[in-house]
Amino acid sequence: MEINLANTDIISILNDLDKEKILYLCERAEEMRDLEKDGKRWLLNNTFTGENQKVLAYMFYEPSTRTRFRFDTAMRELGGKRDGFTGTEGTSMTKKETIRDTVKMMEANHFDAIVMRHPKAGALQWAADVADIPVINAGDGKNEHPTQALLDLFTIYINNNKSLDGLRIGLGGDLSHGRTIRSLVFALSHFDDVTIRWAAEDYLGLPEGIHEVAERRGVKIIRERSVEDVINDCEYYYMTRPQFEKMGGEISESEIAGLLKRYRITLEKIRKSKARLMHPLPVNGEVAEIEFPVFFTKNQLFYQQAENGIFLSKALLFEILSDETYRIFRDRLPESLLVGNNRLERAIKNREKESLAIDVIQNGVVLDHLSYGTLDRIRSELALNEYSVFGGEIINDEKKAILKIKEGELSERDYKKIAMISPEPTINIIRENKVKEKFVYLLCENENCITREIMEDVPPKFYNDDGVVRCRYCGQRYNIKSRKVSDEEKEIFVKSLPEKVEKLS
Amino acid sequence: MEINLANTDIISILNDLDKEKILYLCERAEEMRDLEKDGKRWLLNNTFTGENQKVLAYMFYEPSTRTRFRFDTAMRELGGKRDGFTGTEGTSMTKKETIRDTVKMMEANHFDAIVMRHPKAGALQWAADVADIPVINAGDGKNEHPTQALLDLFTIYINNNKSLDGLRIGLGGDLSHGRTIRSLVFALSHFDDVTIRWAAEDYLGLPEGIHEVAERRGVKIIRERSVEDVINDCEYYYMTRPQFEKMGGEISESEIAGLLKRYRITLEKIRKSKARLMHPLPVNGEVAEIEFPVFFTKNQLFYQQAENGIFLSKALLFEILSDETYRIFRDRLPESLLVGNNRLERAIKNREKESLAIDVIQNGVVLDHLSYGTLDRIRSELALNEYSVFGGEIINDEKKAILKIKEGELSERDYKKIAMISPEPTINIIRENKVKEKFVYLLCENENCITREIMEDVPPKFYNDDGVVRCRYCGQRYNIKSRKVSDEEKEIFVKSLPEKVEKLS
Amino acid sequence: MEINLANTDIISILNDLDKEKILYLCERAEEMRDLEKDGKRWLLNNTFTGENQKVLAYMFYEPSTRTRFRFDTAMRELGGKRDGFTGTEGTSMTKKETIRDTVKMMEANHFDAIVMRHPKAGALQWAADVADIPVINAGDGKNEHPTQALLDLFTIYINNNKSLDGLRIGLGGDLSHGRTIRSLVFALSHFDDVTIRWAAEDYLGLPEGIHEVAERRGVKIIRERSVEDVINDCEYYYMTRPQFEKMGGEISESEIAGLLKRYRITLEKIRKSKARLMHPLPVNGEVAEIEFPVFFTKNQLFYQQAENGIFLSKALLFEILSDETYRIFRDRLPESLLVGNNRLERAIKNREKESLAIDVIQNGVVLDHLSYGTLDRIRSELALNEYSVFGGEIINDEKKAILKIKEGELSERDYKKIAMISPEPTINIIRENKVKEKFVYLLCENENCITREIMEDVPPKFYNDDGVVRCRYCGQRYNIKSRKVSDEEKEIFVKSLPEKVEKLS
Repeated sequence: MEINLANTDIISILNDLDKEKILYLCERAEEMRDLEKDGKRWLLNNTFTGENQKVLAYMFYEPSTRTRFRFDTAMRELGGKRDGFTGTEGTSMTKKETIRDTVKMMEANHFDAIVMRHPKAGALQWAADVADIPVINAGDGKNEHPTQALLDLFTIYINNNKSLDGLRIGLGGDLSHGRTIRSLVFALSHFDDVTIRWAAEDYLGLPEGIHEVAERRGVKIIRERSVEDVINDCEYYYMTRPQFEKMGGEISESEIAGLLKRYRITLEKIRKSKARLMHPLPVNGEVAEIEFPVFFTKNQLFYQQAENGIFLSKALLFEILSDETYRIFRDRLPESLLVGNNRLERAIKNREKESLAIDVIQNGVVLDHLSYGTLDRIRSELALNEYSVFGGEIINDEKKAILKIKEGELSERDYKKIAMISPEPTINIIRENKVKEKFVYLLCENENCITREIMEDVPPKFYNDDGVVRCRYCGQRYNIKSRKVSDEEKEIFVKSLPEKVEKLS
Repeated sequence: MEINLANTDIISILNDLDKEKILYLCERAEEMRDLEKDGKRWLLNNTFTGENQKVLAYMFYEPSTRTRFRFDTAMRELGGKRDGFTGTEGTSMTKKETIRDTVKMMEANHFDAIVMRHPKAGALQWAADVADIPVINAGDGKNEHPTQALLDLFTIYINNNKSLDGLRIGLGGDLSHGRTIRSLVFALSHFDDVTIRWAAEDYLGLPEGIHEVAERRGVKIIRERSVEDVINDCEYYYMTRPQFEKMGGEISESEIAGLLKRYRITLEKIRKSKARLMHPLPVNGEVAEIEFPVFFTKNQLFYQQAENGIFLSKALLFEILSDETYRIFRDRLPESLLVGNNRLERAIKNREKESLAIDVIQNGVVLDHLSYGTLDRIRSELALNEYSVFGGEIINDEKKAILKIKEGELSERDYKKIAMISPEPTINIIRENKVKEKFVYLLCENENCITREIMEDVPPKFYNDDGVVRCRYCGQRYNIKSRKVSDEEKEIFVKSLPEKVEKLS
Repeated sequence: MEINLANTDIISILNDLDKEKILYLCERAEEMRDLEKDGKRWLLNNTFTGENQKVLAYMFYEPSTRTRFRFDTAMRELGGKRDGFTGTEGTSMTKKETIRDTVKMMEANHFDAIVMRHPKAGALQWAADVADIPVINAGDGKNEHPTQALLDLFTIYINNNKSLDGLRIGLGGDLSHGRTIRSLVFALSHFDDVTIRWAAEDYLGLPEGIHEVAERRGVKIIRERSVEDVINDCEYYYMTRPQFEKMGGEISESEIAGLLKRYRITLEKIRKSKARLMHPLPVNGEVAEIEFPVFFTKNQLFYQQAENGIFLSKALLFEILSDETYRIFRDRLPESLLVGNNRLERAIKNREKESLAIDVIQNGVVLDHLSYGTLDRIRSELALNEYSVFGGEIINDEKKAILKIKEGELSERDYKKIAMISPEPTINIIRENKVKEKFVYLLCENENCITREIMEDVPPKFYNDDGVVRCRYCGQRYNIKSRKVSDEEKEIFVKSLPEKVEKLS
């Protein structure tokens, strides 16, 4: 099978890549490495110049040095150009600019691809949905960081006789708050007979979500009691720094440093181990999760990783940008972005509105099954006044509230706001005294998910992952909770979903 | 008439451009657009390389993404280079560096042109005065943003059969706090038979200053009651976001959002309209002055605007940098920057100092006509002690105070500080008991004007705009207030002023 | 003698350059200047392109515009590329990244040289120690700024008939808080018969450390009473702005402005002087240590300095990057970085541990000669609990305390922490009841020195500068204080030190 990665988005290592593609990229990266070691780097110097000029945009909503430099260098050595922003200081982001408008601006500026990092999970999938040009995920919230995983696999590949099957990998440090570990484990899950061992305090341990997905995909995951147990029984030990910036101050930095103390890599701990030490860098200088003298041992592989990142990025950009078709800027958004697929249709038994409640409503919306005690917040969030609501709050026998709203249909934003306050509201659209539509409004429950960012207007979308409903954007599993929805209604809904995260346009 | 824009400063759309030049730029921009649509962008790839290498400097004292990227892309596609700063973080600007020194540094670095944005009105004219290379205004305070106006006109031009006469334009959003609207209206005023309609709350309405100038120049301006009234009777509707960052916190963001609610562009409002919707972008995601579903309508023109900005910027840079003469760095400032033309000479009737007041003063300065109650602030601001002031405060019959200062002539900075506290002070220079000079010191009253920034040392300059005295830097009208100045003195002064904002060097 | 600067680090103008090299660079810079003035700048446009492509990294941990632009322009005009960071906003520096890891990252990105600025003295020498590629110091704390000094000398060189001997130089402004003055004086000390005059308040005066070194090297330094005394008796007057950002808030900005008032350069003060005025720029606009009208006089040389900086940087980069050998990234740190040379060995008279104190200790560390009253802080800083310390605090007859620690050898970080609390601790390593090692741990006393930054893990190193012990990193003189150390032990130690700051790898 010939592999063609031209114009591919690299958003999720799970959805956008597979074993063949990863191995293909490793081969290409190794060619880049060979050129370098042979002193022939300059041979590719003009790949993306002249008539075939390519320009890379970077959009870093979170700080970055390593990842940005990696792509900068790759692009430079291929003769291409790049521009963009790092951090939101000095940009219009403070003016409440949406991702959508920024992505379109980048396209209008004739960039050929985007490398982007954003604090919200799923922001990258959304950017890829908006964009007509390929988008590369440099980290979205606590979700994924696929190119880091690729360079990590590439490092193992060249140190492991070009094989990624049968690996025994150790994980250490903070396994809970980073996206690097998540993408690494998912990446490994594409390969056969992989065993992962880890040891950490609960607060820093491997999240259930990662564990489950990987195990279902055939990875053997074992929790050990100590770093020594792990490091003495693995070929590669992957250490990570505490991700203080993602802990949201739940716990103090010194407490974390304390928790990590037992798990720091010291000369003592690696004395009997032949495991190669990997680390995405930077090591936290204060915590020193890898002690300075360890840097001088033969186990150290992390500076090699740094350079391997260049080769991998070069290979990736070379492939993604290999399409020479001339692209005309599309000054429209794809139609598919306008609506979500998150409306679980309910059967309408009695079309007369009286069935719904006591009062008469001619045209409007009836919100049903609202959680008890949420009405005040909904009213205030939607800025509803006495003229826009019919009657008072009605509490039915299940202690679920009903709200009847006069002014025609509410906006998509309003539905979202309601679902954020009272999950899974049932929405009844009434026209001329009849219930015209009746659906449950589903919204991803991941607090970090881009679909919950009101100002971004991302329409909620799900997909059917072998029977499991998952958010198109952040990948989180969604369990339908409403007891009012029948199994049949549920089944119809799940079947209506696409089976993959597929390109929209 | 052949049009040559080589080395032209683009500071004000009113002063630096006219109908012919704007149409000429639109034609050139259209050529750029044609190249792009024909897949021949690369033909200009080497315009500014090799022996003809050109480098653009950007100096953004305020955040920017859109404008900076526009010029970056333009320069890149012409084969030139660029460098500069965005935001003052990470630069020496925090070290109280003057515009003058920064501009000279840029010239010393062999840049060929400067694109600059600054929070103070007139800062750009001053930069152009200092610089030996062309300067392009990317926004100065609430004053102008001429290249935005040019790209807006270019967008209309290509959608309007290449004509900019007889236009019916609607304006919406925040017409009061931005420079985009100001420059757009001034740009339209170069054309014939233009009608502008707008609707907004007073706080966000079209400022009197813009209205007056445009009307005097033949634009018909009509205020309507509702967005619908405007949008149903115009060909192009130009929407802008609330410029919170320029409101200085006078009013809360949520209050503004409230005021804007009636004026948001929704599907409902444009139902009957054929008006094309324009917006300089970004749309404020939170306020959503243009609702998301509107983005998918045929009315939407703002993403096209974004790309048109590239074509316009390319055309502009192509023209401005077309001079191939070799430029040698000038390590001196033009002499014309040393003094202002703001000293309204008074006739000296009695050269003996006694005429001025009671005390004897041999050499020094007598400040006359100071506003009642300002002396303490003046003394403290100028750090005058008992040894530098003669006698006490003298209050004359008009309740105007007099201050006599021993230590020779005060500096220009001191005069400016005095005028900021007590407008239009009369300054008498005494040498050997005689009044040698007597003048009223005029200073632009625009709080945002660069001439009021003490540390910048910009000498106040005015020009005579058909009988109206205007500030050379921010363009604000100046009305001489002093009742002591005779009509003859006033006339002599006004006649002494240049009739245009002309190049100084 | 042929001069070859390929791959040379430029960290200190004292250690890394000499008269011949400086004059050589001035000649090369003059050639660059001649090309420019002849309109032939483009001749070098392709020096660092194609197969010989060179890329410069900048790492600015402190704000910079001038220095960065200088190197940017130089690199651009030589056809090379550059990338890096300015300020730590938008980078991983906030993640406690060490200089060591950042430098290695830059090398992994195939940069060919580094220009770096850092707030800590000696950080640049450390970066050069880590790096395999040449490093240029763009300012390290209050230590050095050698390229500024070079461009200043170059400016004098071309205005002074190509000679730098016999100069009469005046210094003004803030001589105390900047690194510019330090490097300038040290640079002048390479030349013959130089006289320096200065006048300033004590707080802003020339530091004793600079004075001493320069005088020992033959410079005549004279303090005068007034600016006039200085300016009327020198050929070049070098003015500097108050370095508020380096004063650490010890004194208010307005107080400093007050102190400087007498020393500002005004038209009045230079009336009788032919001295050429130099300034590294920017002038502080608020303080105006050089008054605006002075900018228009013939004395002004600072804008010329700005352009000369380009020529000097071009010459410097041209020379340093002239090596065409292909460089392979070294993914290891040089072994020489692992340990310091700061352990002053003591003779071990009685190997039995009883000699040390009362209690029995089998394996561990005995800290001796600790300053009275520091034990509690040491215990808390090292997080020692009751299990890790033997017995209580022992106070000997000299009121020096002893601490016995069980858990094997403390780490290098621990020694450093102890020495920061109680200088010159004596450390006894006990193994199987015997004293195996006994040494005094020396640590540079400069609060600003990089060796005192715990997280950086810089091993303290000294050198023997003609009998004077100096810190390898910040150059500060170190005086051994311990009265317990014999003259013989001291002599052995000093002789063991290298005689220069030599390349480690």
